[in-house]
Parts: sequence; structure tokens; C-alpha cells
Amino acid sequence: MTGSVESASGAGPPSSRLIALSDAVFAISITLLVLELRPPTDTAHLARGLAELWPSLVAYAVSFLLIGEIWADHHLMYSQIVVHDRVLLFLNTLFLMSVAFLPFTTSVLATAFRDSQGERAAVIFYGLSFGVGSLLFNAIWWYVRRGRRRIRSDLTARQVRSSTVRFLLAPTLNAVGVLVGAMVPPLGLVFFVALVPLLWLPIRAVDPTSGRATR
Amino acid sequence: MTGSVESASGAGPPSSRLIALSDAVFAISITLLVLELRPPTDTAHLARGLAELWPSLVAYAVSFLLIGEIWADHHLMYSQIVVHDRVLLFLNTLFLMSVAFLPFTTSVLATAFRDSQGERAAVIFYGLSFGVGSLLFNAIWWYVRRGRRRIRSDLTARQVRSSTVRFLLAPTLNAVGVLVGAMVPPLGLVFFVALVPLLWLPIRAVDPTSGRATR
Amino acid sequence: MTGSVESASGAGPPSSRLIALSDAVFAISITLLVLELRPPTDTAHLARGLAELWPSLVAYAVSFLLIGEIWADHHLMYSQIVVHDRVLLFLNTLFLMSVAFLPFTTSVLATAFRDSQGERAAVIFYGLSFGVGSLLFNAIWWYVRRGRRRIRSDLTARQVRSSTVRFLLAPTLNAVGVLVGAMVPPLGLVFFVALVPLLWLPIRAVDPTSGRATR
Amino acid sequence: MTGSVESASGAGPPSSRLIALSDAVFAISITLLVLELRPPTDTAHLARGLAELWPSLVAYAVSFLLIGEIWADHHLMYSQIVVHDRVLLFLNTLFLMSVAFLPFTTSVLATAFRDSQGERAAVIFYGLSFGVGSLLFNAIWWYVRRGRRRIRSDLTARQVRSSTVRFLLAPTLNAVGVLVGAMVPPLGLVFFVALVPLLWLPIRAVDPTSGRATR
Repeated sequence: MTGSVESASGAGPPSSRLIALSDAVFAISITLLVLELRPPTDTAHLARGLAELWPSLVAYAVSFLLIGEIWADHHLMYSQIVVHDRVLLFLNTLFLMSVAFLPFTTSVLATAFRDSQGERAAVIFYGLSFGVGSLLFNAIWWYVRRGRRRIRSDLTARQVRSSTVRFLLAPTLNAVGVLVGAMVPPLGLVFFVALVPLLWLPIRAVDPTSGRATR
Repeated sequence: MTGSVESASGAGPPSSRLIALSDAVFAISITLLVLELRPPTDTAHLARGLAELWPSLVAYAVSFLLIGEIWADHHLMYSQIVVHDRVLLFLNTLFLMSVAFLPFTTSVLATAFRDSQGERAAVIFYGLSFGVGSLLFNAIWWYVRRGRRRIRSDLTARQVRSSTVRFLLAPTLNAVGVLVGAMVPPLGLVFFVALVPLLWLPIRAVDPTSGRATR
Repeated sequence: MTGSVESASGAGPPSSRLIALSDAVFAISITLLVLELRPPTDTAHLARGLAELWPSLVAYAVSFLLIGEIWADHHLMYSQIVVHDRVLLFLNTLFLMSVAFLPFTTSVLATAFRDSQGERAAVIFYGLSFGVGSLLFNAIWWYVRRGRRRIRSDLTARQVRSSTVRFLLAPTLNAVGVLVGAMVPPLGLVFFVALVPLLWLPIRAVDPTSGRATR
Repeated sequence: MTGSVESASGAGPPSSRLIALSDAVFAISITLLVLELRPPTDTAHLARGLAELWPSLVAYAVSFLLIGEIWADHHLMYSQIVVHDRVLLFLNTLFLMSVAFLPFTTSVLATAFRDSQGERAAVIFYGLSFGVGSLLFNAIWWYVRRGRRRIRSDLTARQVRSSTVRFLLAPTLNAVGVLVGAMVPPLGLVFFVALVPLLWLPIRAVDPTSGRATR
């Protein structure tokens, strides 16, 4: 419970309360996704009703995995940040605002595909929302790595570059997905989903305990 | 707040942020169950209206106790894991996705029993949802215990086997419950509920502090 | 992150994950209370519409303060427990089930008072729900203090008795409130609310750090 | 997990459970804001429907940033408190009650601006709700700094005064916003939003690790 939001002394990592708040917002957003799912009202044909919910189920799974992936990257990024200040706090708040927004975006996407109309607008809206979030994520990274003043001093230039490249994948895939989705909506979704396998990409990551590069 | 999601050094348990995220998803899912309950609209006969909500109340209690039991087993399993990697992270994310899904499944179950139709489909859907979750749970365990590379080195073969057997009870009971429920829906529920007393089964568990086997 | 749910060695307090889960359920329940509040639909007379929501606002405040008080007592009780086992885990799960139920109970209460009918049934239902919760709370306490095997060894008999008396106040006031509320509904509420000032009662509490009795 | 709610010994900061509960209420309130947003039902004109949601989107962003700012100040304040007692606990509970109330207030605000009527009442209601919260926040500060008995002993008089002035900005801006909003509703909102840039005001804050004043 130590560490002030104003601390600029570089004596330690961002405060545990900042991490706790971020994790809670992630957890709540990811769990609120389920509220978009409503039981079919026609219980006489319940099995069919459940099957017709497939757009909502797909949207649930896609958003869950995407938010999970963003969380993992947030974890990875913050394990490298050692100096925290109010600019970083504000950027993180903006970023969390985009994360907490995703249950709504997911709901819009599911509604459009269930009605079989408005898919184009929904996919673009979904991609832009995720895109803003991933840009804010990158803004945090560019801010902390500037002059290497706020990240761990034992990180090699190559390790920093590796994170930079990794974090840029999200907005890039999002932008492509929006462009493609503007033409063929379901195809746009494929690009968003493509972010998830990133979880297994062999990356040159950083072990915060030993400082060694690990797979 | 130490421990990277990429850490493969075996220097410690899974990161506290992973545990915090998991616990939060459990807590939110278990608490969102109550949102399925809606006050009767006919307040002139409120007592009767409340009594007619019994399917929702039963569904609430069953799901609450089941999620509570899953949480306890998640706790037990993770107290034995010492090496964490991205495969484990992904499996845990998939597992959490199934946990966060349960308020919806519970809602479907309650709706069917309240309408007195669609119970068969609802019980099967409920059992399959829980079943997928318990299979993912077992997938995590089989992954970490493989070659004993990711679990505590002081665990005896017998202790590991004891956990393996224990964790297999959930998908087994679920499968039986789905089969029985396909014939006699309410009877299927009995098998799901039977998981709860597992909380008291005398088990050969593992004290993470001393490494001794405890009751 | 140490401490197994199976630990029976008495080496330490209940696991931090158990506390974290409990706190999260408290926090979510207390925050979900607000979902019962819906903006008036007639925005042409918004001020009047907001004023007419008073039963919901009162129910929100009462339940928030009561859950806050229960949380404080849960905190106080757990700061005295040093040995944890699966019976305790199960009792705590049942107790959390009653806490997570309160947003629904609160909603029923507000609905009845807003409709000006069904208040009797609503107050009894509210009181019984809180009553079950406070009995489960006491069950935990009676279980852990039995033979003094699961509480801190430095507690004097008088300190234990002081907690016992304090914790019994809740079910007592609840029972009186239900009886009175069965005759004069709003008067029953007064007894439930009376629990809140307990927060300031001079109590012979226990400082978990020094073991000294403090005011 | 140490620290009793009754502790008055001054041996340490407020209990970690109190901080955890507060953070969770902040996180849940800030994330529940999204539930006010509902996908447009007319998916045939989805883009237009989304655009017409702008009052909800603005209300979402404003409340998110304001709650984020309140959280940061709560963090800053609690990093200076070392003695905790039941009065403080109660004040904090009241304060959290006002925080958890904000998703409703935000919903009222968005509804009024979407209907283009009732804006005056909505802005006043919004301002008063935030105002009560910020007064409770200040009540906590005035209580703990009284006689300097509950704050860190290394704080200089100037540092304490600096926090006092900073914390008074919120209720002041709120009061002005309510008065202005009673005449020109949207202009009132501007004063509420003006709180957000406070995040960057150069303040004489306190580093909890070193006790040095930092920027």
C-alpha cells in the first residue's frame, strides 16, 4: 500500500493501488460482457432460441479474449515501469476509460449481427473503439520509454524495441480491420480476432525478477 | 506486484496480478447472479410473487455454491503451481471466460423452470457450460503437472494423483448430469448440485507453507 | 498469496485470496445497489420524478450502510481468526451468498414502498434475508471460537465474550424488526437501521498488531 | 492483511482491507457507467443512432474522468493517514456511498440531455451529488488533520495546508457549477469538468516513501 500517485522519485514501481484499480476495471469490464446475453423469451423453443444467439456468443468470446490479451500486455508493460507520475496516471485513466467502454461496443456489434443490418457501422465502431484503446496503450509506452527515464534501467535497447514493436501490432491490426470491415464487415472481425494468437507469439520478454530475457 | 506474465524462470508462483484478476472475475460472476432476480411487478400480492420466484432462487443458490466450489479448487490448484507461462495464461483466460458465462446460463435455467417449458434444453445447456469450464480447469492441471515441471517439487506422486482424481470429479458429475437431465431435467440438476458437498470430502491436500499433507 | 484453503496447521491467518474474494463480493454487492435506481422517464418533470424516487433512495442508503457495517464486522472477526479450514470456507461462502442477495432484497423493498402496497411482505422479506445473513455470520464466530482452537491465543475470555455479544446484536435487532414490521412496516425498518450506529459503539476490540485491547 | 478496523494505536496505515474495499467500489462505479449506454434499437440506421447517443457518451467520459480524479485524490489523502479509527471508517463509508451513487446521477444527466428537457434539474442534481461526495471527502481530511493526530508526523504545516487547499477545490467548483447550471445548464457542466485538469496542477505533494516534497 505504499507509493504515492505523485511520487516522482523513481524509488519503486507504480503504486499497488493503481495496479489494483486497473485490474479491477479489466475484470469488471470482461465480466460485464455477459450482461449483453439475455435468455430467449420463447422457452417453448429454447434450444433454437439459444442457437439464434450465436452473434452474441461470438461477440462475447471475441471481446473476452481481446480484453484478456490487452490485460496481459498491460501487465507486461507495467512490469517494466519503475517511475510513475501524474501524466502516466492520466494516460492510464484514459486507457481504462476505453477498456470499460468495450462491453457497450460488444453489445452494439452483437445487436447488428443479430438483426442482420448495420454490421458495417458496428464493425467500424468496434474497431475504432478498440483502436483508440490501443493507441492510448501505446501512448503510455512511448511516454515511459522516452529517454528511458521511467522504465527499468536493466532493459537492453533490443528488449525495449521488442516491446515497442509488439505493442504496435494492436493498433495496426485494428486499422486494417476497420478498413477491411468497411468493405466486408465479417472479414474485418477476423483482423481483430487475429490479435489473440499474439498471446503465444515467441517474444523477447523481460523477467522482472531476474532481469534476464526469457522466451 | 512482482512476476511477469512471461516469466518462465520458475522463481516463484504465478504473478499476483493473475490471481487478483481471477479472483475478481470469480467475485463479479458470483455477485452478478443476483441481477437475474427481479422484484415481482404485482406488489399487491408480493408474498405470492416472491414465492413464485423459487426457480430463480434455487438457480441462484445452486450456481453460487458451484462457483464458490470452483473458486476453492482454483485456489487449491494455484497454490501448487510455481512456474507460469503464456500457455497457462491463455488456458486460465479461457477458463475465466467459462466462469464469467455462468450468470447467463443460470438465467436461462431459471427462465425455463419459471415458464415450465424448455427445462430439458436449459439443463443440458447449463451442464454443458459448466462441463466446458471444468474441462478447461482440468486442462490447466494436466498442463502444469506434465513432467512435474510447473508444480511444487515437494509434492509427492500420491498428492499429485489425489488432486488429479479430485479435479476429474467435476466433469464426470457434469457429464452424468447432462445425460440424466436429457431424460429427467430436474434429476440432472441433482448431479450438478452433488459437486458442492465435495467441499467437505476429506482430501489429501497440500499445505503450501509447510509442504506437509493435511486433512 | 500464500495459504491453502485446506490448511489446518494454524500457521497463519486465512488465505489472502479468501479475504480478497470476500471483500470483492462486499464491494460488488454494495455498488450494485445503485442499479435499482432508474432515471425518471418523464424528463419534462424531472425534479418531481427524482423526488418521487425517495423510497429507492432511502432503501439505497439503508442497505449501503448496513452492508458497510457487516463488512466492518467481518473485518473485525477475521482479524481474530488464525486457523482456517474447509468448514469455515463453506460457512463463509454461505454467508457471502446472503450478502450478494441484498441488492435484490433492497429492490423488493423499494418497489413495495414506491407502489405503496406490499410493504409488510417486503419488510419481512428484507428482515429475514438480513437475518439469515447475520445468523450465518454468528455461525462462523461460534465455530471458530469453539474450544478457542481457531482464534488468536492472546485473546482474553472477556474479549471473546465482547465479540460474541456484539455479533449477536444484528440477528436480535433483525428479529425484533421483523416482528414489529409485520405489524407496522415502516417501524420495522427503524430496527434494521438501528444497527448502523453500532459502528460507533465503544467496544472492547482487539488490536491485531499489538494484541492490546483498544477502544 | 493486518490492521483492525478498531485499531487506534497509530502503529500503521489504515488496513489494507479498507483500501481494497474503497478501490473496488471506485472500480465498480467507474465501470458500471457503461451500463447506461444502450445500443440503438434501430440497426437499419446504426451510425446515426450511435451519433445521437452523444449526450450519453459525453456523460460517460465526464463522469469517468471525475471519478478517476476523485480516486487519485483519495489515494493521495490516504497515503498521508497513519491512524485509523471507527469515525474515519464511517466517514469513508458515507463517502463511498456517494461514489457508488454516481452511475445513477450520470444516467439522469444523459437522459435529460437526450430528451432535450429537464437539463436544469439534471445538472443541479448531478452537481449536488458530486458536491456531497466532495464535502464528505473534505470531512475525512479535516477529521484526520485535526491536531495532526492521524496524519504522518513528518508532514510540514505547509504540506498539510497544500492538501487542504487542493481538496477544497472540488466542492468550490461544484458549488459554482450548480449555481451557473441553474441558469445555463450546459455551462454548469463546464465547471464540473474543470476539475479534471487538476490532475496536472503542479502540487506540493508528499512522497510516502521518502517524506520529501515532490512536484
